[in-house]
Amino acid sequence: MEIIVLKFGGTSVGSIQRIKEVAKIIKSYSRKYNVIVLSSAMSGTTNKLINMSLKISKNFSDHEYDTLVSAGEQISCSLLAGQLLENGIKARSWMAWQIPILTEGKHKYSRIKYINKNKILKYLRSGGIPIIAGFQGIDKNLNITTIGRGGSDSSAIMVAKFFKARRCVIYTDVEGVYTTDPNKLNSAKKIQNISYEEMLEMASLGSKVMQAHSIQDARLNRINIEVKSSFINKSGTLITKRKNIINNKIITGISSTDNDAKVTLVGVKDRPGIAASIFKPLSQNSINVDMVVQNISSDGKETDLTFTIKSIDLTKTKKIINKYKNIIFKKLIFDKNVSKVSIIGVGMITTPGVTFRMFQALARKNINIQVISTSEIKISVLIKRTNVTKAIKCLHQEFKLNK
Amino acid sequence: MEIIVLKFGGTSVGSIQRIKEVAKIIKSYSRKYNVIVLSSAMSGTTNKLINMSLKISKNFSDHEYDTLVSAGEQISCSLLAGQLLENGIKARSWMAWQIPILTEGKHKYSRIKYINKNKILKYLRSGGIPIIAGFQGIDKNLNITTIGRGGSDSSAIMVAKFFKARRCVIYTDVEGVYTTDPNKLNSAKKIQNISYEEMLEMASLGSKVMQAHSIQDARLNRINIEVKSSFINKSGTLITKRKNIINNKIITGISSTDNDAKVTLVGVKDRPGIAASIFKPLSQNSINVDMVVQNISSDGKETDLTFTIKSIDLTKTKKIINKYKNIIFKKLIFDKNVSKVSIIGVGMITTPGVTFRMFQALARKNINIQVISTSEIKISVLIKRTNVTKAIKCLHQEFKLNK
Repeated sequence: MEIIVLKFGGTSVGSIQRIKEVAKIIKSYSRKYNVIVLSSAMSGTTNKLINMSLKISKNFSDHEYDTLVSAGEQISCSLLAGQLLENGIKARSWMAWQIPILTEGKHKYSRIKYINKNKILKYLRSGGIPIIAGFQGIDKNLNITTIGRGGSDSSAIMVAKFFKARRCVIYTDVEGVYTTDPNKLNSAKKIQNISYEEMLEMASLGSKVMQAHSIQDARLNRINIEVKSSFINKSGTLITKRKNIINNKIITGISSTDNDAKVTLVGVKDRPGIAASIFKPLSQNSINVDMVVQNISSDGKETDLTFTIKSIDLTKTKKIINKYKNIIFKKLIFDKNVSKVSIIGVGMITTPGVTFRMFQALARKNINIQVISTSEIKISVLIKRTNVTKAIKCLHQEFKLNK
Repeated sequence: MEIIVLKFGGTSVGSIQRIKEVAKIIKSYSRKYNVIVLSSAMSGTTNKLINMSLKISKNFSDHEYDTLVSAGEQISCSLLAGQLLENGIKARSWMAWQIPILTEGKHKYSRIKYINKNKILKYLRSGGIPIIAGFQGIDKNLNITTIGRGGSDSSAIMVAKFFKARRCVIYTDVEGVYTTDPNKLNSAKKIQNISYEEMLEMASLGSKVMQAHSIQDARLNRINIEVKSSFINKSGTLITKRKNIINNKIITGISSTDNDAKVTLVGVKDRPGIAASIFKPLSQNSINVDMVVQNISSDGKETDLTFTIKSIDLTKTKKIINKYKNIIFKKLIFDKNVSKVSIIGVGMITTPGVTFRMFQALARKNINIQVISTSEIKISVLIKRTNVTKAIKCLHQEFKLNK
């Protein structure tokens, strides 16, 4: 039998009632597949543990943090295994150190390097369903390590990789990936199939279904992912390689951000290397510069430089710019009232005129574009935050995403 | 430097504030000793986890139970280690599997068999304070095992044994062991020194400070135990070998139970083997018979047999007695309104007349004795439960325990 990996997020196992529901879902797969389950901590547990650690210290030890929070998955996995046993299904919980799942890298931000398959394969052959704790691993010195918040998705994908699973099903509290945020647009539609690359853009641009690095892991290892709801029995969204997707639309989805800020330096010297001299100290301080535009100067002497950063980095950015004396400018303008709206789709590679259609649609609605950035499968524009809903709505219509 | 083991119970680490206090206590030892800490789960945690498991099943898997509840110590130990680090003290949490602490026996009721000292000794030599999770171990197949409720005391004593610690300090929420339950008698006094044997009798007879098997572990391994409060800085009670104790009183303490029940079979045949035929099926059903008395029959044909059991076993006992047809009797009488009051003291070995003084003191207060049982260092009497406070008071006075 083929192996399938089922991963359940925190809300999916958020109560004993939910654990009972999830046990039924697991059973429904067990006749057709060898099932491996990964579980997150029950929703709320991880935050509760983190809050306790913060009462002790704002700089709580990373080593102890990993030991502390990984207790959450220990609880959810043993409860879930206990529920399956209660239902007459052979199952047991597996902590990372019992398998083991080996990681490398720093505490709190480790990555899974190797999974020893022996015990789990033996257990599968005995007819058991292993319930593996997500989010955790151990390093070579038997320290408990975690792989970052939301890391249970990564755990599931790495398990799917090492066990050559046919598919990895990510059970969550949404029905799948939508053409745009359903909270911002009622007519948003569930996407049936999406490529890794599109999903990566959707994730990094503000869609919260899966974290970017989990999708990247799946892409690199060619793991088919299905994102679906554990609360309702409906098909979800398949994230797969591009060539598996038929009937591409030009645009697959629209995303928007609400944590960007715009910085404009007015009257900087228009000479080579000036942008670099500004961005170097920002990069050294781990501030990520996203969109950049430099106006063409009329006199060849001075110009304006505009770029976007995350809003939380605004104070730090201001300090750095004012501190570095070789950054010469006339005026510094900040604007937190901006959002980045992006259209994403592999279809635009082969379809000319997409940029034009996007700009025209926005212009018709009197939405001013402040900054533009593009990639092969994405066009992003920075606009006033108050215009976001209007922009998403008109773009959704323009590219017929509600059909 | 000598090694000292400090064990903190659930209430001692029951909140972040308590963890901060405990960190100060640990620091106060760290200049004089190599400190090894054992911690229970934060009070409430274990019960909360057990309640979740009971919502899943009344027969929740023992394997998953052990994995589930041991998460509690993982949380408390990482928080405590984090607090010590925050205070500038080198410390880290150690789960049983990281050391490892090896157990044998069944899930939920395992016993510590072996503790590998290498890593902990290395860590102590580096100047660190290890915070070891109590209550947990692993078996030879890397399953998580627990050593029974209250088992963190046993963990501490076994750590003290393997590391040849000078002393094991059990920090709890009471100031030590008292001559009798302070809730029942205001004038109860804290005992400064008590022998293992006396403490064993106190523990098994209803004193709740430490569980009997932990004291037995300490006795077998000659570990000096100090029981004291983590809430107030006062000397506690030293539990040690008999010859370390000077100025023995005749009686060290008085204990009482409130979970006994009396069973009387009226008119059983007075012939050899009759008592055995009754107690055999009870023992086969794990019902523990404590005190026994058989009346002398006047006619040599029939007699009455009285014994005590735990109240919770009453229904089961009734069923068994009625089921076994070879148990012939005229009438079955049950009485839950009884308590066992015991005086305990190694002093009584060398002091004649203790029994007489006890009975006389009770008689003066018109307290009727229903059943008597004695050991080398203990005299127990079964009396009406309503007489318990009066009995404790007069015995406390008779043997001058409030002096």
